[in-house]
Amino acid sequence: MAVYTDVAAEDISPFLAGYEIGELLAYKGIAEGVENSNFLVHTSRGYFILTLYERRVAERDLPFFLGLMEHLARRGITCPQPVKNKAGNVLGRLAGKPAAIVTFLDGMWIRRPTAAHCAALGTALAHLHLAGRDFSLRRDNALSVAGWRALYEGCRERAHKVEGNLEMLVATELEILERDWPHGLPQGVIHADLFPDNVFFLGDKLSGLIDFYFACTDTLVYDIAICLNAWCFEADHSYNVTKGRALLANYAKARPLSHPEWESLPLLARGAALRFLLTRLVDWLDVPPGALVQPKDPREYARKLRFHQKVKSARDYGLVEP
Amino acid sequence: MAVYTDVAAEDISPFLAGYEIGELLAYKGIAEGVENSNFLVHTSRGYFILTLYERRVAERDLPFFLGLMEHLARRGITCPQPVKNKAGNVLGRLAGKPAAIVTFLDGMWIRRPTAAHCAALGTALAHLHLAGRDFSLRRDNALSVAGWRALYEGCRERAHKVEGNLEMLVATELEILERDWPHGLPQGVIHADLFPDNVFFLGDKLSGLIDFYFACTDTLVYDIAICLNAWCFEADHSYNVTKGRALLANYAKARPLSHPEWESLPLLARGAALRFLLTRLVDWLDVPPGALVQPKDPREYARKLRFHQKVKSARDYGLVEP
Repeated sequence: MAVYTDVAAEDISPFLAGYEIGELLAYKGIAEGVENSNFLVHTSRGYFILTLYERRVAERDLPFFLGLMEHLARRGITCPQPVKNKAGNVLGRLAGKPAAIVTFLDGMWIRRPTAAHCAALGTALAHLHLAGRDFSLRRDNALSVAGWRALYEGCRERAHKVEGNLEMLVATELEILERDWPHGLPQGVIHADLFPDNVFFLGDKLSGLIDFYFACTDTLVYDIAICLNAWCFEADHSYNVTKGRALLANYAKARPLSHPEWESLPLLARGAALRFLLTRLVDWLDVPPGALVQPKDPREYARKLRFHQKVKSARDYGLVEP
Repeated sequence: MAVYTDVAAEDISPFLAGYEIGELLAYKGIAEGVENSNFLVHTSRGYFILTLYERRVAERDLPFFLGLMEHLARRGITCPQPVKNKAGNVLGRLAGKPAAIVTFLDGMWIRRPTAAHCAALGTALAHLHLAGRDFSLRRDNALSVAGWRALYEGCRERAHKVEGNLEMLVATELEILERDWPHGLPQGVIHADLFPDNVFFLGDKLSGLIDFYFACTDTLVYDIAICLNAWCFEADHSYNVTKGRALLANYAKARPLSHPEWESLPLLARGAALRFLLTRLVDWLDVPPGALVQPKDPREYARKLRFHQKVKSARDYGLVEP
């Protein structure tokens, strides 16, 4: 939640003149997205989001992200749609940073999702995977199994500051996942960060998906595993099988899982838990004490990992064998 | 620039149901205002600003601030207008904090104001003072001369950390101002914080005034002195007499200054410089090193104070004797 780059009206006006979206009437820096600076822009044609990409997003990846949003919107997925400038480009520059304008999406994210929200999410995730099948660009997932050891090495010596046995938990798990990580499962575009704050609802109806800046090409069922971790645990860290079943059954209704995909779910859920455990651990250890922005607690994902370690099969998540 | 209180859609929806502003479609935390949490709210009836008042704003002052905005809007001043809830109140409670909804105002603030902007400001400030004349509520200015010594005492011992001779500058000035501060000049509602970021423009046309949370009852010409400090100095700290003349002449056209008001301007300008020097000094010394939010530099106002100390009469600011 931040605005990293301050942009003056005197600079934003000429930038917008390069688009056919009318005259600038107002803009506000908004607290959305942890990686970029975002502004809500009001013009004589309506409301838009202006994003300035900060250093944590690689400029070479922007054509993938923006192209994906265009591709998905054409296939009926409700997501922010990049607006082309008069030269036909979706990517421009403002205040020395890459910048893009996307359409404004109504809807709110749900802090305490119910099983009905999880059901809607399952359907939307399957539709996202189906719509992404013929997207022509490719982007490797830097935060999948091949990238975890480097994260671990960078923080192993300080991990005990967060929790006594965290280093051992991660070390052991990492070895298992590196050895057993499944290959050959159906791949495609995954969102890779579909937490509740990236899913908008209007009432109980899912109204859109946002923040595609971790999207990449990877194992589809890994995206499901990320969502199980993000949506189906309660505040007391217990797994809610009703929510899990709702998510999985509705996903499978729109895109049935193969038997190998079903079998891989517990291991992928462990991987997804380890991925967020590691990135949160790095952020946690990097933030100086007393900082205004409190990073997310990595221990939440250590608990989830320990839960998944005890899971026998995908049946435990609420999904019957296909 | 901050959102201090996180509000869930699940909480904001029932709050909005108490108003006749339609159904909630979206809301975004916005980076505006340093004292409160602000959200841009989209409903089926349009766009609004929802403000949660944080601890730096005293709850007992809210009827003054909100009543003033209503009063001014009725008299043709373009400013955010508080929206009444179904019970007829402009003040409610959300997330344990006092909360209000005001209308959304188009316009942008100008980072590098020209003399034309200063001229427009002068007119708007005079109109604000005229429109406030028959406002029935009263609020003393806690940040006028009677409040400065306490601020000074709280930071005098650490002032040298910011600039070697700052303690002496403030101590000497404070004595003079406490002795010579003018009494009996025309009083009324002043904005008291009309910096460029609180004045919106659409093109060269001033489109509205915002952020009335320092407004109070005080000497009108002191408000002019605050604006001279905030608008008429260049980045190199030089006073721009063209801008000053534009501001003052246009103010006086709408509300002519009396001779005593004209005479008091240099001393009030010193007071205004000292007031912002002191509050910035307190903030500067209170912020831990390495914090994300960099406080504003108090030395800017030390330089302005030294400029005003050398001023002979209001003529030096560009205003001819009335």
